[in-house]
Amino acid sequence: MTSIQSANILILATDGYERSELRVPRDELTKRGAKVTIASIKTGEIKSWDETDWGDSVPVDIEAKNVRAADYDALVLPGGQINPDKLRADETALDVVRDFVASGKPVAAICHGPWLLVEADALRGRKATSYPSIRTDLRNAGATWQDQAVVTDNGIITSRSPKDLVPFVDKIVEEVEEGRHERRAA
Amino acid sequence: MTSIQSANILILATDGYERSELRVPRDELTKRGAKVTIASIKTGEIKSWDETDWGDSVPVDIEAKNVRAADYDALVLPGGQINPDKLRADETALDVVRDFVASGKPVAAICHGPWLLVEADALRGRKATSYPSIRTDLRNAGATWQDQAVVTDNGIITSRSPKDLVPFVDKIVEEVEEGRHERRAA
Repeated sequence: MTSIQSANILILATDGYERSELRVPRDELTKRGAKVTIASIKTGEIKSWDETDWGDSVPVDIEAKNVRAADYDALVLPGGQINPDKLRADETALDVVRDFVASGKPVAAICHGPWLLVEADALRGRKATSYPSIRTDLRNAGATWQDQAVVTDNGIITSRSPKDLVPFVDKIVEEVEEGRHERRAA
Repeated sequence: MTSIQSANILILATDGYERSELRVPRDELTKRGAKVTIASIKTGEIKSWDETDWGDSVPVDIEAKNVRAADYDALVLPGGQINPDKLRADETALDVVRDFVASGKPVAAICHGPWLLVEADALRGRKATSYPSIRTDLRNAGATWQDQAVVTDNGIITSRSPKDLVPFVDKIVEEVEEGRHERRAA
């Protein structure tokens, strides 16, 4: 069993991530004692999307190409319309998602973040949720889409939007402390 | 046969449409004599996305809920990451897309615009293209995705990005002049 106080959590994002969907998990998981690392497909800083326009930035800690899933206990995928659309077109980002899915460690995606799980073909036969606009993409990828604040299936945690951030973070903590799942490779 | 000079073309978009993907079809089709009408899910103006940030606006001519496909010869769906994500969550916009698909009239979508064809389930068994980031969504919706400037299958015209706008518009003209297709209802 992993305590959240000794857990290493990776957040993968790039320009256009929804600001609250990166900051709230980062700040809440840090408060509970976890070490949180921000990975991206670029170096320097990544610029948020703050509801209706570009917002402030956060520094990038590690490039996606240098991430080893073995070094972390869970992966968090924020949404935004722009961020996952860029990440899903980048093979180094997809490799990170695929490696975490294959590892059986918790993978948590919120809002438009589940597009990355679609791209990694990680939702086939699983229950999941997302921002409602992309539910057809999740269903077409083989998911059973559910209109719930947080849906967990075999360590894959999904939520609908920023209003679900509290149960989303709580579920990440719960799944990290529960440990890894037996999961088929993606 | 419909001449482009007497054709009525509907463009459906909302805030966050990629500027060139609305303006180039609008201006080029107008130059060739067509009457072009802009429909949206809001009244007033819709604000463009100009490559990396919000751009200028265009006036809305008609609300989606008041559109009758019978009044037009073709439908054009610009992309942008934000615009189709908003439209696909709006039933009045989807009704417009479904009505045009069912009518057999040409439906042309570029870049991220094909998400609306995914939402209307109009691509099953068809060849299509799109911005590459969403090709998995098209494939999962039953399309055979092709990396070509313009793909036409039974009057459904798709293109990849703004760099394909010239052949995209040319194909719209060609399909409008060819007339309607026998197409199963969506």
